[in-house]
Amino acid sequence: MSESPVDVLVGKTALSGTWLEPNRLIPGVLFVHGWGSNQGNNLQLARSISRLGCICFTFDMRGHAATSQLHESVTPEENMADVLAAYDLLATHESVDKDAIAVIGSSYGGYLASILTSKRPVDWLILRVPALYRDSDWKKPKAKINREALNAYRDLYLEPDDNRALRACAKFEGDALIVESQNDSVVAHPAVASYSGAFRRAHSMSHRVLDGADHGLTDVHCREAYHHIVSRWMSEMISFAREHQ
Amino acid sequence: MSESPVDVLVGKTALSGTWLEPNRLIPGVLFVHGWGSNQGNNLQLARSISRLGCICFTFDMRGHAATSQLHESVTPEENMADVLAAYDLLATHESVDKDAIAVIGSSYGGYLASILTSKRPVDWLILRVPALYRDSDWKKPKAKINREALNAYRDLYLEPDDNRALRACAKFEGDALIVESQNDSVVAHPAVASYSGAFRRAHSMSHRVLDGADHGLTDVHCREAYHHIVSRWMSEMISFAREHQ
Repeated sequence: MSESPVDVLVGKTALSGTWLEPNRLIPGVLFVHGWGSNQGNNLQLARSISRLGCICFTFDMRGHAATSQLHESVTPEENMADVLAAYDLLATHESVDKDAIAVIGSSYGGYLASILTSKRPVDWLILRVPALYRDSDWKKPKAKINREALNAYRDLYLEPDDNRALRACAKFEGDALIVESQNDSVVAHPAVASYSGAFRRAHSMSHRVLDGADHGLTDVHCREAYHHIVSRWMSEMISFAREHQ
Repeated sequence: MSESPVDVLVGKTALSGTWLEPNRLIPGVLFVHGWGSNQGNNLQLARSISRLGCICFTFDMRGHAATSQLHESVTPEENMADVLAAYDLLATHESVDKDAIAVIGSSYGGYLASILTSKRPVDWLILRVPALYRDSDWKKPKAKINREALNAYRDLYLEPDDNRALRACAKFEGDALIVESQNDSVVAHPAVASYSGAFRRAHSMSHRVLDGADHGLTDVHCREAYHHIVSRWMSEMISFAREHQ
């Protein structure tokens, strides 16, 4: 809140006046969907977050929706470039506060969102069922990555040094929220736990498990619970940021 | 909340993106102080209301603070011109939503604020212990108005047609909040009741009595109770306006 004096002119008389203006902090929120999904799955949550006073941005990664012809050939490295381009569009929006950027990534999108924090300023990071991929798969077509090897990899408890995304999380100094699904048959618990353990320098880290939820949140109540968790967490972060502006 | 599609360019590929932007409704709130007071008495409440996301404006009326040399000569008509000038400054602020203007007036300021609604668009009108003056005193120096006659006038239950301010209230179609002090020795209950009864076309009208309060809210708890009532009422009005934008 800022206060500034101003004169009110009435004929030849100048009266003393004071403007009291609210803080204009408008956070920007980037949504990164998962592999095989699209921005449509993020719109409902994005609407809720937008009502908190944020400017939200969703987009379709290469290999999805209109560019699904690239589904078999697109690599994590290329999708990372997509995320960077979307981030840069959001961060240069004239109304977005560059010191209040949130990224919300699900599964593969959580993996890319984590790596994004090592390449661009991110204040708030929300990872839903974040997936892990071997560093050696970075330039391979995502669709061709061996699923069996990947499942075995996700059964390991990894150290930050073991993985590109975890290394980024270890350096992240903002606030992090991880939301895990209790009955996740795609990303095993050790992978999510490896993410949790990696946030060693974070300003805050919260890890929530959605009871009875599957990887894709097909149950509407689980999806609502997820939206509720994210909305409440974002409200708290925004309130804190506004108070300390 | 608005949604608009946009392309994200990554090299030669265009990805589909969506902006989700919050409503930008920023109400403007004008504070009109009472006779013998000044804008300083409104700053605390203005700060609270500003934190609700409003742009607030306080000012010193002619005859007060820096222009106190005019105290003996200034007329209600001249102070009305001050209020109009302050309103016009607020309403032309580039960020203020012209369809969301509130005016908060105390005592003499409530009298002028009521009349303002007949001269400028006002959506929300808050009158704290609004005073009444005879129409015939309009062009007389305010400080010279016979106090005994005034007290007798304020003991009457008046119809809207009887008074300039009440006529304005009778035509007001926005939301009104009246806050009365239980132990008011300056503005008698019939005067405040005449205001309440005048809002015949209002979208809503609330009348609250502050238990144990005097005219000037010298008791800090009464002042806090008043601030609480106004903040809550304004929050409700703003939420409703944002939802229906």
